[in-house]
Amino acid sequence: MSRTYELDRAHVFHSWSAQTLIKPMVIDGAKGSYVWDEEGTRYLDFTSQLVFTNIGHQHPKVVAAIQEQAARLCTVAPAFANDVRSEAARLIVERAPEGLNKVFFTNGGADANENAVRMARLHTGRRKVLTTYRSYHGNTATAIQMTGDPRRWPNDGIATDVHHFFGPYAYRSPFWSSSEEEEGVRALEHLEATIQLEGPSTIAAIVLETIPGTAGILVPPGSYLAGVRELCDRYGIVFIADEVMAGFGRAGEWFAVDHWGVTPDLITFAKGVNSGYVPMGGVIISDEIAATFAERPFPGGLTYSGHPLAAAAAVATINAMADEGIVSHAAAVGEDVIGPGLRELASRHPVIGEVRGLGVFWALDLVRDRSTREPLVPFNAAGPDNAPMAELLTETKKRGLIPFVNMNRMHVVPPCTISEGEVKEGLAILDEVFTLLDRFAV
Amino acid sequence: MSRTYELDRAHVFHSWSAQTLIKPMVIDGAKGSYVWDEEGTRYLDFTSQLVFTNIGHQHPKVVAAIQEQAARLCTVAPAFANDVRSEAARLIVERAPEGLNKVFFTNGGADANENAVRMARLHTGRRKVLTTYRSYHGNTATAIQMTGDPRRWPNDGIATDVHHFFGPYAYRSPFWSSSEEEEGVRALEHLEATIQLEGPSTIAAIVLETIPGTAGILVPPGSYLAGVRELCDRYGIVFIADEVMAGFGRAGEWFAVDHWGVTPDLITFAKGVNSGYVPMGGVIISDEIAATFAERPFPGGLTYSGHPLAAAAAVATINAMADEGIVSHAAAVGEDVIGPGLRELASRHPVIGEVRGLGVFWALDLVRDRSTREPLVPFNAAGPDNAPMAELLTETKKRGLIPFVNMNRMHVVPPCTISEGEVKEGLAILDEVFTLLDRFAV
Repeated sequence: MSRTYELDRAHVFHSWSAQTLIKPMVIDGAKGSYVWDEEGTRYLDFTSQLVFTNIGHQHPKVVAAIQEQAARLCTVAPAFANDVRSEAARLIVERAPEGLNKVFFTNGGADANENAVRMARLHTGRRKVLTTYRSYHGNTATAIQMTGDPRRWPNDGIATDVHHFFGPYAYRSPFWSSSEEEEGVRALEHLEATIQLEGPSTIAAIVLETIPGTAGILVPPGSYLAGVRELCDRYGIVFIADEVMAGFGRAGEWFAVDHWGVTPDLITFAKGVNSGYVPMGGVIISDEIAATFAERPFPGGLTYSGHPLAAAAAVATINAMADEGIVSHAAAVGEDVIGPGLRELASRHPVIGEVRGLGVFWALDLVRDRSTREPLVPFNAAGPDNAPMAELLTETKKRGLIPFVNMNRMHVVPPCTISEGEVKEGLAILDEVFTLLDRFAV
Repeated sequence: MSRTYELDRAHVFHSWSAQTLIKPMVIDGAKGSYVWDEEGTRYLDFTSQLVFTNIGHQHPKVVAAIQEQAARLCTVAPAFANDVRSEAARLIVERAPEGLNKVFFTNGGADANENAVRMARLHTGRRKVLTTYRSYHGNTATAIQMTGDPRRWPNDGIATDVHHFFGPYAYRSPFWSSSEEEEGVRALEHLEATIQLEGPSTIAAIVLETIPGTAGILVPPGSYLAGVRELCDRYGIVFIADEVMAGFGRAGEWFAVDHWGVTPDLITFAKGVNSGYVPMGGVIISDEIAATFAERPFPGGLTYSGHPLAAAAAVATINAMADEGIVSHAAAVGEDVIGPGLRELASRHPVIGEVRGLGVFWALDLVRDRSTREPLVPFNAAGPDNAPMAELLTETKKRGLIPFVNMNRMHVVPPCTISEGEVKEGLAILDEVFTLLDRFAV
C-alpha cells in the first residue's frame, strides 16, 4: 500500500462517500485521454474525470500558461482589475450569445448557480426558482436544493423557494408521449401549467441544464428550449441555462444553447472553461440584468472571483480550443465515430436500451428489457440491487477503461480531443463488457 | 486608459459592487508586501489582498511548486487519491488540535462553511445553526445567511434555520459590561440564554469566527471560547470554528484557537492555507464526526475537492511557513512592531478610539469622540456620511499604501512575512493620514 493511499485513507474525507467503504484508486499521472496509477497501469479516461478535462489531460499550452502566470502573478483580489481576468472575460463573452456581455467569475459551478439565482431574484423582485427533477446544480445550499437527483434528499429544505417540475425525457416520458416531438410539446404544456399554478408573479427564474448531464444526458426535443425562452418572456421570468457540464465544447459547440439558437438571460459555466486545470466557474450576464446592478450594489462576491491563475488557464484553454479546432473536432468525433460506434454496440447488445447524445456527451440507457424499458437496476439502487452496474464498473476498469456510471446508465464523456483510434479502443472494451452484461437482459 | 481596464469595465462583473460606480485599479505585478500598477507605481499592501496572501506575494517556493505540479498533473477528480492531496491533508491535520484528523477540501471558505454545517446537521440530527451578528461566513446561501454583516440583508431568508446572537465586543459591549472579563462572562450568559430559548435539542451547531475578522478583528475575552466549548458539550451542539481568515498564521498561530487551547469539532479554512495562490478551502473534521460518515455516505461534494494544483500550493506554503518561521514571525512582528506602533499612533491621534489585534491581524476602531466612542462614520454609512472613511482610503492610496477599510474601521492586515521596515513605512503613511482625519474628532 502506497504512502499516498495510506495518507488518503487516514486524512482525506471524500465527496459523496461513506468514508470506510471506498478504495480510491491513486492517480499518479495523466496525458491526453489517459491516466495512470502508481504502478504505471494506464487507463483510457472515458469520464474526463468529472466531465471537465475537455481539452484532455496536461495540454502543453495550458500547462505553459499556468506556469508563466504563476511566475508573473498568482493572485489578486477581486476588487482590482487584471489583464488575464479581463482577457478571459472577453474570450468568454465573445463566444456567448449576443447580448450577454459581462462575466461574474466564481470558483465553480455551485457558486455560479447560487449567484445566478441571486441576480434573478434581485432583478425580478421575485423569490421562487423552478428547476427540473432530473438535474444536478451543485452542493451549496441553493444549488443542492435546485438539484433534482437523490443527492438533494438528505439536504432537503436547507434553502428556500425552490420548486421542481419535469423536463423532457422522451425515452422515459413523464408525459406519456409517444414521440420526441410530442415530448417537447407536452413538456412545455407541463411547464406552463406549473408556472400558472405556482404563480407567475412569484417566479424569479427557471433554471435548466441546457442538456441535463449527470441526470442522463437528456438532449431536449428541438422545440423545447425556444419554448422555455418564450414562456420566460411571456411571464417575465429569468431563464438561467446551467452549462457547467454542457458548455465549452462538451456538446460540440462552445455553448450547448448554440444547437438551438436560444439566448438565455444568464449562463452558468465551470469545468470546460479551463478544463478544471485551476478551479473556476462563473455567470455570463445579459445586458438587461447587468443594468440592474449598474448603480445598485450586487450583494454577492467571493475572495477568488476572477483568480488570475484560473483566468490564465481559461485564456490558454479557449485559445487552444479555437486554434486547434477542438470544438468542431468534438462535434465531428461524436457524429462520425462515437455515435455510430455506440449504435453499432446497441445493435448487438440487448442490455443497451437507448443511445443518445452529441459531441463528446453520450449516454447509454441500460435495460433488462428493451420492450418495457425496465432499467438494468432500480432507481437509486445500492448493494446487491446495483450488482450489474458494479460489474460494469469493475470489468471496464479491469480492461483499462475508466467509465462514468450513474444509476442504470453509462455515460461516454471523454475529452473533446479524443482521437478516432482512442474511441475505438474504448468501444472494443465496452463490447466485451456488454457481452458479459447481456445476460441480465431478455 | 489601458486595454486591461477597458476590458474589465466592458466585461468583468465585480463582487459586492454597483458596476458603474467603481474604478478598479489595475494590478500588474506583486512581490512580498508590495503590488504595482501598469505604470509601475508601487503600493505597500496592508490588506494581503482580501486578507489571504499570508506568505506575501509570489513566494518563490510556492511559485515553483505550482509550476512543477502543473507540469506533472494539474487535476484529478475527487474520487481518486493523489499524492499532493494526501500530503496537504497530512500537513493540515498535523497542525490542527488533537482529535481532528480528516480534511474535506473545498474551493473556498463559503463552501467550507456550507459543508461544515451539513456535517453538523447530519451528525446531530438537528437543524438550527447559531451564528453571531458580527461575522462574515461567505456568499452561498447558508454561508450568507450565517453572515452577520449588512451583506446578508439583500440575501436574507434564502437559507433556513439560521439564528443570530451577539458575540463579545468589549469596546462596544452589547452586554453593558465594563471590563474585558465581564464581557466574556456576560457573552456566555447571553449565549446560554439563547440556546435555552431556541431549544437545545433543535440546535445542530454554533458557528463562530474564532476571531471575527471583517466584522472588526474582535479578539474574544480569554474565557470565551472555552466557555463556548463547554456549552456545546453540555447541550450536544457541534462547535464550528471558522478560521478562513484567522487561520494559517494570520493570528500568529497556525490556528487562532491555539491561543486559547480550545478544540472545536470542525474548523473551516481557506485563504492562508495556500495564500490564495490557487483557490482552496476545507473543513478539518473531528474523529467523532468523521465516524458518522464512516459507513453512511456524506451527501456533499464538489468537482474540485482536493485539487492537485491547489494542494501542491498548500504543501509548499505550509512547508515554507514552517521552514522559515513565518508563523512565529507574524506573532513577533505583531507584538513587537505593529501593536506598539499602532498604539503609539493612537496616543497622538484622537480619531483612533481603540487598537486591538494580534499577529498580523489588527483593527483601529475610529471615533469622533473617545469618551462617547461615537464611530467616525455611522454603521453601514454610504455617500457623504462615509466621507471620512473615503478620505482615509484616498489619502493612504495617494501615499502608496493599500488599506483595508470596513465601516468605521481600518484593519492592518499585511502579509505574515512583513518586515519591521515595511511596517514602519506603513505606519508613517498612516501617521500623515490620521493627522488629516483628526479634524473629525473632538
